[in-house]
Amino acid sequence: MELLTATLKAITPLDESLLAEAQRHLDQLTKPQGSLGRLEELAAQAYAISGGRFRPLQRMAIAVFAADHGVVEEGVSLYPREVTAQMVLNFLAGGAGINVMARHLGAEVVVVDIGVDHDFAGVPGLVARKVLRGTRNMARQPAMTRQEAVAALEVGIAVVNELAARGVQALGTGDMGIGNTTASSAVLAALAGLSVEDATGRGTGISDAMLAHKVRVIERALACTQPDARDPLDVLAKVGGLEIAGIAGAMLAGAAARLPVVVDGFISTAAALLAVALAPACRAYLIAAHRSAERGHTVMLEKLGLQPLLDLDMRLGEGTGATLALGLLQVALRIACEMATFGEANVSTALDG
Amino acid sequence: MELLTATLKAITPLDESLLAEAQRHLDQLTKPQGSLGRLEELAAQAYAISGGRFRPLQRMAIAVFAADHGVVEEGVSLYPREVTAQMVLNFLAGGAGINVMARHLGAEVVVVDIGVDHDFAGVPGLVARKVLRGTRNMARQPAMTRQEAVAALEVGIAVVNELAARGVQALGTGDMGIGNTTASSAVLAALAGLSVEDATGRGTGISDAMLAHKVRVIERALACTQPDARDPLDVLAKVGGLEIAGIAGAMLAGAAARLPVVVDGFISTAAALLAVALAPACRAYLIAAHRSAERGHTVMLEKLGLQPLLDLDMRLGEGTGATLALGLLQVALRIACEMATFGEANVSTALDG
Repeated sequence: MELLTATLKAITPLDESLLAEAQRHLDQLTKPQGSLGRLEELAAQAYAISGGRFRPLQRMAIAVFAADHGVVEEGVSLYPREVTAQMVLNFLAGGAGINVMARHLGAEVVVVDIGVDHDFAGVPGLVARKVLRGTRNMARQPAMTRQEAVAALEVGIAVVNELAARGVQALGTGDMGIGNTTASSAVLAALAGLSVEDATGRGTGISDAMLAHKVRVIERALACTQPDARDPLDVLAKVGGLEIAGIAGAMLAGAAARLPVVVDGFISTAAALLAVALAPACRAYLIAAHRSAERGHTVMLEKLGLQPLLDLDMRLGEGTGATLALGLLQVALRIACEMATFGEANVSTALDG
Repeated sequence: MELLTATLKAITPLDESLLAEAQRHLDQLTKPQGSLGRLEELAAQAYAISGGRFRPLQRMAIAVFAADHGVVEEGVSLYPREVTAQMVLNFLAGGAGINVMARHLGAEVVVVDIGVDHDFAGVPGLVARKVLRGTRNMARQPAMTRQEAVAALEVGIAVVNELAARGVQALGTGDMGIGNTTASSAVLAALAGLSVEDATGRGTGISDAMLAHKVRVIERALACTQPDARDPLDVLAKVGGLEIAGIAGAMLAGAAARLPVVVDGFISTAAALLAVALAPACRAYLIAAHRSAERGHTVMLEKLGLQPLLDLDMRLGEGTGATLALGLLQVALRIACEMATFGEANVSTALDG
């Protein structure tokens, strides 16, 4: 609890005057004012986060948290539970979507076992920080105790504290966990008071019948565990997941370390709801990567007041959306650092009119 | 006219069965089917364009066509006419938005003087293919003769034929020309039968009063020159621009060479309307980069049946939107080439359900 408390305390509000200072620089570059749209917003946000500097992004990391979900025994996913562990091995071998996209970006992929139901002993490259071998089945009992949820948050914090200490300048979040759209929809419904039907989508691509079943399972979980909407730790423990906790912790640590944190898709945004509920000032450090095809994601983003950068009908998770958005952040910062000003390039500025 | 005729003849319809063939490969990769959304569509389109291969994109070029517009003397832009030439020099010096973004992507920027009202003699790095020193003022007379319009189309074709011969694998289009949103809006209104008001936006950022004036100028140009909506060459010559013609020619040559062509923003999409009117099969080779903030762009894209990849509130032109979309195409192809299949990675496939 100590690490969590210290991290929450370390998150300070963004100095909004720095956004205007950044914009004054961007307005001197050889382009009509504001004509690079959201790239200019991104550059200004990064400027303010770093305390008033435009720095090229050279070191980026995607922190991928993997865990299993007890609720999978209710038959809510198209894939068997073993796929979580199989995909972790695929990440470590470099064959998954996130690996290809992170290589393309030039970012490091950090794979964290925070709760996979598999013994990875001796597997190289894995950050082994297992809190539990998967959550309990929330349809029958709380997924975690409050202590376990805090431990998982603190794993996320510790992972990002280490990345920050190693000089990582921006962070993307990612997830792997069969069953984790079920947990994320439950978090959304519990925290935001949404109906389970509106909060629940097809995950990996389930049928109408399975979707109706998934909705009933989440309704049963909420009725059984009674999460308290005013207590984010209670919601996280009762209907969340270990990887969701890890991602929320990563966001809190990123904000505390004054790093831009790119929020991936549905699972990561559920984690962002929790992180912002725990520390509202954290929101200013977050960048929403994309609008996921998963139902409920748009409402989540609205609750957070975040406007996604991309809308490419993606729903893979793993941090794949985050890599694309980190690429936009990187180019936005290059623009701020490298474009010529009107004065430097001897280009006439706008006429009065 | 000979080069144009030969190019139009060389454009063949896409083999649609290759799209399904590409999708069968993408469905074997370790991710839920379709979960990479529009990246999968992009990879499949590139596969079909190349005749049935997934090839990593290593050589890309942005062809930026620059020209002046006689209609600027009516006071339709916020910037003086000299800015076209000043920005060409900025491109050649590497200081403009397109330079930074193309460097970031690893793409070459090819700057073509197709009609700038400036003598660039001796300036290194410029592709000097001036057809005229700017168009005539379309509010008083046709902007170009039909012969001049064809000559400008053929400059675009020749530039891209050379790039294709040098091994460029994908192309982005770009523009520079003070006054060119005025010409593009006129092309849209004339070709698509849209009201000038609906086709006209703020360009570099003009006021309400200037916008109303710009609308009246375009209405006057259409009334004066009477372009024939059924004859794209007539529309291009009377109310188009030299860079718009060059871009349209580049698109035709790209399709003829079986290259994916990424359409930038408002100006490039006006050129795409003309290219597709001249050769409907060209459409399948085009990729719409983004939804520009310029009014009328959404209607243009709908007329073409193209769905933009990005919506970042950009309105700079130069090919800046195209560079971002080429980056997406590049990562889409890496995914298709590098991701592990379920079999290779020993990952269980979806359960029946």
